[in-house]
Amino acid sequence: MRKTIGILGGMGPLATANLFKKIVTMTKADGDNDHIRVYIDSNSAIPDRTAAILQGGPDPTAEMLSALRHLEACGASCIIMPCNTAHYYLPRLQALTGTPILDMLEITARRCAALYPGKRAVILATRGTLATGLYSAALERQGVDFLVPDEREQDVLMHLIYGVVKASRPLAPEKETWRELLDGLRARGADYFILGCTELPIVAAELEIPGPFVDSTEELARAAIRFCGYEVKE
Amino acid sequence: MRKTIGILGGMGPLATANLFKKIVTMTKADGDNDHIRVYIDSNSAIPDRTAAILQGGPDPTAEMLSALRHLEACGASCIIMPCNTAHYYLPRLQALTGTPILDMLEITARRCAALYPGKRAVILATRGTLATGLYSAALERQGVDFLVPDEREQDVLMHLIYGVVKASRPLAPEKETWRELLDGLRARGADYFILGCTELPIVAAELEIPGPFVDSTEELARAAIRFCGYEVKE
Repeated sequence: MRKTIGILGGMGPLATANLFKKIVTMTKADGDNDHIRVYIDSNSAIPDRTAAILQGGPDPTAEMLSALRHLEACGASCIIMPCNTAHYYLPRLQALTGTPILDMLEITARRCAALYPGKRAVILATRGTLATGLYSAALERQGVDFLVPDEREQDVLMHLIYGVVKASRPLAPEKETWRELLDGLRARGADYFILGCTELPIVAAELEIPGPFVDSTEELARAAIRFCGYEVKE
Repeated sequence: MRKTIGILGGMGPLATANLFKKIVTMTKADGDNDHIRVYIDSNSAIPDRTAAILQGGPDPTAEMLSALRHLEACGASCIIMPCNTAHYYLPRLQALTGTPILDMLEITARRCAALYPGKRAVILATRGTLATGLYSAALERQGVDFLVPDEREQDVLMHLIYGVVKASRPLAPEKETWRELLDGLRARGADYFILGCTELPIVAAELEIPGPFVDSTEELARAAIRFCGYEVKE
């Protein structure tokens, strides 16, 4: 029996579509039947994770669990969540299921250590993710040196994530904003950029400013393909 | 209770990802929670539809039904199939479920009649789809005039669909092949092109030769969004 992937999605929907496309295009395949069976619940009813963590907004775990149960019922061999902030709830969800949930932050931190030893990363993420300290902890476990965006830089990131990608607004007018953010971080000592929010690979792909980037969505896709025993097209 | 979409996918996986992305980007939404909940089973085990129709290959209906049952169990309000050829099996599947399966060919034919009255279409599709005569019948019901690709043109379409997109090969080297196909069809009297195979919108988007095109994937996305009572972003 071949292994399958369950995507606990909707956080946000475009980031979910981006992950699914990456799984398809990164799998070594000569035809439809060489691909991995993928189940998705893009549950748009999941309350915002950053609002829950920082402002006491509605708890997202019940809706996340609803999606998880659907994926389990389909028979998914593993669960992946294309939302870095949602990983704050990973231990609570993992305690409720025997299906392994792959940890995007841990996977991304390992890739940083492997690709850029001795270099300094910067964590580009939502305020919610940064507030949890989960990325810092994952990077420290891998011995990766890193910076955290300051208040003004976090404002810019939240604008791009919530004010543009999640709001279905065009990215092109944001090119200078994105360039200035990256240039400023480079001037502050960052050697490379962790796209630690799944809306940011969409920004980076469309605005085409050179990184280098470590894309958490791509790393999660790679890890899930390998988990299922398929080959990654390099 | 808001309506939801179930995508019976995997035919092929990249076409499934393309449909999902179109649903997300075409839905009028200011944030994650404004989107439609979408369930996907991208079942890569579904046998090839054209091979089943033309060469007595394995019957795909059992694997299609497996995916359908997963989507039903999730509670999908409607089912959509991002594979025109698979619509040959729609009546058999519809007889086995109370959940409505939207008919991509009918939807596409209606759009042709609405957008290009008095003009002549050409059906770009797999040999399997063309052999079933389903598109011809749908277009005739809408009073749409149309051409069918000849043997050599069908060879080119099968190469692009099976030899390139489904085979995960690069599209860029196919630009002249695609241009010559469209020019030849135009010279034979086609006023516009029905992308009547869900791999072809991927070809058309990447190779950027002017149409006009009627994209069956886009029409299916639009119909599904409206079925669920959401607004299409125009």
